[in-house]
Amino acid sequence: MEEPGTGTLAELGEFGLIERIIDQDSLTDAIVVGPGDDTAVVRMSGEVLITTDMLVEGVHFRQDWSSAIDVGRRAAAASLADIAAMGGSTRALVVSFGAPSSTPSAWAVACAAGVREEAARAGACVAGGDVVSSPGIVVNVTAIGDAPVGGAVLRSGAKAGDVLAICGRFGWAAAGLAVLSRGFKSPRVLVDAHRFPEVNYSAGVVAAKGASAMIDVSDGLIADAGHIADASGVTVDIDAASWEIPDALSAAAAAYNVDPRVWMLTGGDDHALLATFSARKKLPEGFVRIGSVIDRAESAVLVNGQDFDAGSGYEHFKR
Amino acid sequence: MEEPGTGTLAELGEFGLIERIIDQDSLTDAIVVGPGDDTAVVRMSGEVLITTDMLVEGVHFRQDWSSAIDVGRRAAAASLADIAAMGGSTRALVVSFGAPSSTPSAWAVACAAGVREEAARAGACVAGGDVVSSPGIVVNVTAIGDAPVGGAVLRSGAKAGDVLAICGRFGWAAAGLAVLSRGFKSPRVLVDAHRFPEVNYSAGVVAAKGASAMIDVSDGLIADAGHIADASGVTVDIDAASWEIPDALSAAAAAYNVDPRVWMLTGGDDHALLATFSARKKLPEGFVRIGSVIDRAESAVLVNGQDFDAGSGYEHFKR
Repeated sequence: MEEPGTGTLAELGEFGLIERIIDQDSLTDAIVVGPGDDTAVVRMSGEVLITTDMLVEGVHFRQDWSSAIDVGRRAAAASLADIAAMGGSTRALVVSFGAPSSTPSAWAVACAAGVREEAARAGACVAGGDVVSSPGIVVNVTAIGDAPVGGAVLRSGAKAGDVLAICGRFGWAAAGLAVLSRGFKSPRVLVDAHRFPEVNYSAGVVAAKGASAMIDVSDGLIADAGHIADASGVTVDIDAASWEIPDALSAAAAAYNVDPRVWMLTGGDDHALLATFSARKKLPEGFVRIGSVIDRAESAVLVNGQDFDAGSGYEHFKR
Repeated sequence: MEEPGTGTLAELGEFGLIERIIDQDSLTDAIVVGPGDDTAVVRMSGEVLITTDMLVEGVHFRQDWSSAIDVGRRAAAASLADIAAMGGSTRALVVSFGAPSSTPSAWAVACAAGVREEAARAGACVAGGDVVSSPGIVVNVTAIGDAPVGGAVLRSGAKAGDVLAICGRFGWAAAGLAVLSRGFKSPRVLVDAHRFPEVNYSAGVVAAKGASAMIDVSDGLIADAGHIADASGVTVDIDAASWEIPDALSAAAAAYNVDPRVWMLTGGDDHALLATFSARKKLPEGFVRIGSVIDRAESAVLVNGQDFDAGSGYEHFKR
């Protein structure tokens, strides 16, 4: 890799940018052929997991709220968390990066570094990609991982009587977005939670040994619990009294006169791992009980045994 | 799948669109878990090949020149051809689709159908994806395929004395773009070549048994021969007298008073398979000899033994 320089992508060009974002030293042992050929070649075993996520400037992020590294980390985390939520291990990412020619080269190079940094947190690396010109910035990350044959944890395995448990923060990214939307830059801990999630990727592999269903919370706790409920044909009852509201959330909520539980129940983008486990088993490290799976005529999500009505999560195209 | 209806994505919403573009019936036997979970699960063997390509409205395509199906087919073909050029078999695609809320739902549904149609031509299917709102239309396709362990054909294996051969059309997409850029809609055969390539995907697997190096022509014949030359440390001499100029190209070139060989030597996007083979072996079916690999002090591409100077191919960000 060479220094990005101070110019724009128009000066650097497609091939100049590629030269500056490929980092052969960061390739893991899983990579047989890294960037520079028609495809990457990756050594994998068991079954192959694949997921893709697109982040669009002005929709998912704003440059005045997030740095280039933040955007890269967040784009990578969305796909890495999906592999973790299947109980898999990510082996490689491929990244498509679209940006206007006027984009500072340093922004593009830093964004690529953010993707690599987050990949490394999950024990993976960037094996290839595509860079194109585009009217706005678009970052697409595809992750491939593997899981033992038959060992991937689907959304569809939850059974009545199971415990609902979560690993990781939830509601923090939504609180951070609320802070930024009101024109503030602090508290820093909330703003950072919007900029990039903190995902415990290895917890997914550990949980896979005992979880009956698993998902990562990207749309919101109620929405994603709903995906488990729908796929499994069960009702999930979230026990909202089972957790303490973190001080940072209750303080911000008090300042804005809102209910912090709405952030925690409907806010997405924290990518916590949400899973169901047999009630007879001890929860894996990092998971805490936040509800239960109950038997009802139809699949649904309840909060404290009741319907909860405050919008269930973000939906693209809808305003 | 349900009918797309006549409205826009704003009316249909993210989840409505997902419902209309998922086609469980099109899934191949390689798919263990298809759309609807955190990741797809794919049965693969040998080594895993992965590649990703982004198509941006206004950069790669225009809606007045290409239909939604065309755009979907072309987006899929770019990645499918990369897998073929490694000698691999594509097992699954994942697709990210970004579009404004004002986009007609029917456009999005047709684009997804185009991706599926092209995937089916390569014996593959769409195993998952992401749909997001975006200021302009962006389609990103990632393909995963497999090849026998150690059997992927890289760009780096060409040796002096090898024959350079090609399978498929080249220069046609560039000629089609020239026709459209001048405001014409015919000849249809050229316009269609711009709209979507015709790639012989299975020829890549067959060629893999004998090819020393392979690539698909996406940047242009000289540019992609140059990628083989650089990776292999050889000089490739293109014998431009070895092929006849197709009538459609010579007629259009005559009408516009341009040299059709420039389209054929520098035009990309046809995704022909370009490979090198030992001169002692018979070329695989579909491949024709168009040059040779020669021994020179530095790696380079020659045309009829000479340097060729007419721009080597498209480069993003440069104007």
